[in-house]
Amino acid sequence: MVDLRITVTLKKTVEDSEGGSVLKTLKLLGYDGVKDVRTGKVYFITLTKGTKKTGREFCEKLLANPVINECAVDD
Amino acid sequence: MVDLRITVTLKKTVEDSEGGSVLKTLKLLGYDGVKDVRTGKVYFITLTKGTKKTGREFCEKLLANPVINECAVDD
Repeated sequence: MVDLRITVTLKKTVEDSEGGSVLKTLKLLGYDGVKDVRTGKVYFITLTKGTKKTGREFCEKLLANPVINECAVDD
Repeated sequence: MVDLRITVTLKKTVEDSEGGSVLKTLKLLGYDGVKDVRTGKVYFITLTKGTKKTGREFCEKLLANPVINECAVDD
């Protein structure tokens, strides 16, 4: 059994409007020590067979858009 | 400077329809070794001041719904 954690984020060069919105709201709540917020999507995938490489394939074939996303696979 | 990674997931007891949809699609793509998929939202937050405890406050005050969500803070 393999447990993968796949994190899909926007590339640094792509504007993260949701992150910007969270940043603004945290500041409004009084947290002036917040400098930056970036958001992403995370998938916890349990495999009965396969490896980290299988997770890479999931990124390429389904989870991420290579034009705007970065995809990190951790086990 | 503190970098926090805040992961918001659905509680185990709450149905994750997006995860179910990804699971089904991966199987349709031929990956029959996929047993389970759970999804979540991740926030990468940079603080000029504050600690992991500040991240916990962000969960409580903005990022997570305590009825359905779990919130994990890593630094």
